[in-house]
Amino acid sequence: MSLDAVLAKIDEALPDATARLLDLLRIPSISTDPAFKADCDRAADWLVDDLISLGFDASKRPTPGHPMVVAHYNPDGATGPHLLFYGHYDVQPVDPLNLWDRDPFDPQIEDTPAGRVIRGRGASDDKGQLMTFLEACRAWKAKHGTLPCRLTIFLEGEEESGSPSLIPFMEENADELRADVALICDTGLFESKTPAIVTMLRGLLGEELTIHGPSKDLHSGMYGGVARNPIRVLSRIIAGLHDENGRITVPGFYDGVPELSDEMRAQWQGLAFDHARFLGDVGLSVPAGEVDRTPLEMIWSRPTCEVNGIWGGYTGDGFKTVLPAEAHAKISFRLVGRQDPFAIRAAFRAYVQANLPADCTVEFKGHGNSPAGQMSVSHPAFEASRAALTDEWGVAAAYVGCGGSIPIAGYFKTYLDMDAMLIGFGKDDDQIHSPNEKYDLESFHKGIRSWARILDRLTKQAK
Amino acid sequence: MSLDAVLAKIDEALPDATARLLDLLRIPSISTDPAFKADCDRAADWLVDDLISLGFDASKRPTPGHPMVVAHYNPDGATGPHLLFYGHYDVQPVDPLNLWDRDPFDPQIEDTPAGRVIRGRGASDDKGQLMTFLEACRAWKAKHGTLPCRLTIFLEGEEESGSPSLIPFMEENADELRADVALICDTGLFESKTPAIVTMLRGLLGEELTIHGPSKDLHSGMYGGVARNPIRVLSRIIAGLHDENGRITVPGFYDGVPELSDEMRAQWQGLAFDHARFLGDVGLSVPAGEVDRTPLEMIWSRPTCEVNGIWGGYTGDGFKTVLPAEAHAKISFRLVGRQDPFAIRAAFRAYVQANLPADCTVEFKGHGNSPAGQMSVSHPAFEASRAALTDEWGVAAAYVGCGGSIPIAGYFKTYLDMDAMLIGFGKDDDQIHSPNEKYDLESFHKGIRSWARILDRLTKQAK
Repeated sequence: MSLDAVLAKIDEALPDATARLLDLLRIPSISTDPAFKADCDRAADWLVDDLISLGFDASKRPTPGHPMVVAHYNPDGATGPHLLFYGHYDVQPVDPLNLWDRDPFDPQIEDTPAGRVIRGRGASDDKGQLMTFLEACRAWKAKHGTLPCRLTIFLEGEEESGSPSLIPFMEENADELRADVALICDTGLFESKTPAIVTMLRGLLGEELTIHGPSKDLHSGMYGGVARNPIRVLSRIIAGLHDENGRITVPGFYDGVPELSDEMRAQWQGLAFDHARFLGDVGLSVPAGEVDRTPLEMIWSRPTCEVNGIWGGYTGDGFKTVLPAEAHAKISFRLVGRQDPFAIRAAFRAYVQANLPADCTVEFKGHGNSPAGQMSVSHPAFEASRAALTDEWGVAAAYVGCGGSIPIAGYFKTYLDMDAMLIGFGKDDDQIHSPNEKYDLESFHKGIRSWARILDRLTKQAK
Repeated sequence: MSLDAVLAKIDEALPDATARLLDLLRIPSISTDPAFKADCDRAADWLVDDLISLGFDASKRPTPGHPMVVAHYNPDGATGPHLLFYGHYDVQPVDPLNLWDRDPFDPQIEDTPAGRVIRGRGASDDKGQLMTFLEACRAWKAKHGTLPCRLTIFLEGEEESGSPSLIPFMEENADELRADVALICDTGLFESKTPAIVTMLRGLLGEELTIHGPSKDLHSGMYGGVARNPIRVLSRIIAGLHDENGRITVPGFYDGVPELSDEMRAQWQGLAFDHARFLGDVGLSVPAGEVDRTPLEMIWSRPTCEVNGIWGGYTGDGFKTVLPAEAHAKISFRLVGRQDPFAIRAAFRAYVQANLPADCTVEFKGHGNSPAGQMSVSHPAFEASRAALTDEWGVAAAYVGCGGSIPIAGYFKTYLDMDAMLIGFGKDDDQIHSPNEKYDLESFHKGIRSWARILDRLTKQAK
């Protein structure tokens, strides 16, 4: 049976595959908000059922948080590599809800000037992406009656909330999870058109801080001017985190940040990244980061410090002349090279403490941390997959960096001694983590076809 | 009939007076939040009914916002001054609700180590205070069968939301409202023990601003470092509003700020203000304002700029690596002397515009403004009232400044050509505008007695 027959089956079955994805997208599996715990569980059940229908030995596995889904396919006499596929079934929160053009959990196919899209929370990150692999397996099985090689599917439900159960679960189940190579589908095409394998990933450190000042909320008429205002203290601390050149001022922050190699710099220049379009797509025109770095460097190979949330005092309608007792912020750092998340957490906290005026105290809450990752591309699966992607998309696939933090890739190396390939089909305008998230129908369709081609190349390579 | 009989009646009827106040406090008349519109209306009705029971010709008067309550008592052949009494029946919002020890609108008498208190939103600001005058009238009428002089009662329902209807209403009803002198009960004792008449009031300017950056919320992994973050922009603008010496940096801000006269400075020094206790009561120890000013100056005679609220990005449980499209703040200025609120609004907005980086825009919303006020103490009612207060409290009453903004005093002068006396019985620890607001039962009781003494002195003076 030829690859062409599988690809034809994928084309023919696309409406059914899309309907299945819409079904999964209807489950509001927001992992960070405890109110959606039962929905996360329901998404896991849905996937277990689907994997069983594909012939996997699949089960929902409890953790102290949301469950894992683990599935095995291990036919007698299978040849070829043992592949592990990773994705996550949890999604980001949906606020601000008023900026959505539709209910985020009532997904729909929409025709847009740029083509058909699947609209809804999780369409791109990561339900649409993980289903590309499952649909490729389904088409393969429909034509061959079997899957091409030994497969393990490993789906997580806490990726959007810092993956607290992931490492313990990998450690406890290392023998069961270990395979020859991991496939991770949670990244995008380069510039929305060039297929890419990510080999460089930024790490992440999340911190939440609360500045305490007066022992209670005060009247700004009675105390304004003479009492310390925690919002002003917090604003000054945030303002001081960057200098005039956009560099982060936390002492020791740049320890372990490597300079880009000339080779990699040349390769990235060859990608002809259109930063005007990248910024223009989101209503911006001027890069805001370090003045002496290119936008692609800022995103892929430079560390950052961003404020993801701030709140304090009266934030409702109208006005209240309150001088609040406390103010809060959520701050995250993207890390590169050998930056140590624990050292940076300590340095950041020391910086804040050193900048607190009299009568103020600070409380910290850590929100997960992961070092940056650097893939080795020496495993032959990398070049085979790159060729398969090039076949499907008609454009030479690239090894690229990724601004986001996908710690799972590093964990496969650390805890299971496996190389991981990050291959995904998201586009820059998918609005993941934002209102009106979508996944192009083309990404979904050609994503499924890409995996069929990759499975074909990897199993042929083994023969 | 002697004053003593009226005072004895007040003492005897205190439980009934307290029960009436608790009844009024149960109405959640939060004027700034449209959800409580019907409750504001209900509070006005309650007061109209009570005033009618005291023999007033009372009515609820519509405005584009919440209604005014106006009541007249004009007996045939009345001698003595025509007095106008002003108070407000609306209250502040109650958030953060979790910091209240009881439902803010289920008020109760509580025994505390410092004495009995009436606990609930509005107990001190301003329902408890306005009821001191009505209860003094009630006792007077019980003993004399009539009230002592011609009286107008004028109660507002928008004081906590910038009084948008007040000036138009005063202008339209100037002839009806004009009296010889105004009595305003919305201030406190000096240092919780010395009766005081406020002669110096700070003005207020409220501004809300929204900084817009990217056209939508972004993923901080994909855009962090390269895209402009509105929270960081806002923090930098707020941090820049004060210099290292605590002075406000808005150009021209100090135009019209007078230096304290030697005479007033000497009088204030005589008050022996205990700033360690003032700050210590709210968990602070070091004055935070201009380094070269005393705390009493900071509160009474220096202008301020405070942030009353800030919000942007993800503020819920857990963490979301969002780079938000916008960030917001509510900022207020307390004004003194001849500072012009309109000039300062323009200068503040220009300052913000001048500090916006590329790709950012700002939207402003004005939240009311009033210039500072300076009472003339030449009207003989001032000295008569000061003597009455000294009689009741056994401590020489003082002319003082007030950090808060009670624009009504200036409006009586501007629109009705009346002098106004600000006399109130609140204490520093009443927690007005904060959780667990209270009014001491002593403030309520001696407040009622104070008004009876003032009415007695003012009517005797006229004979």
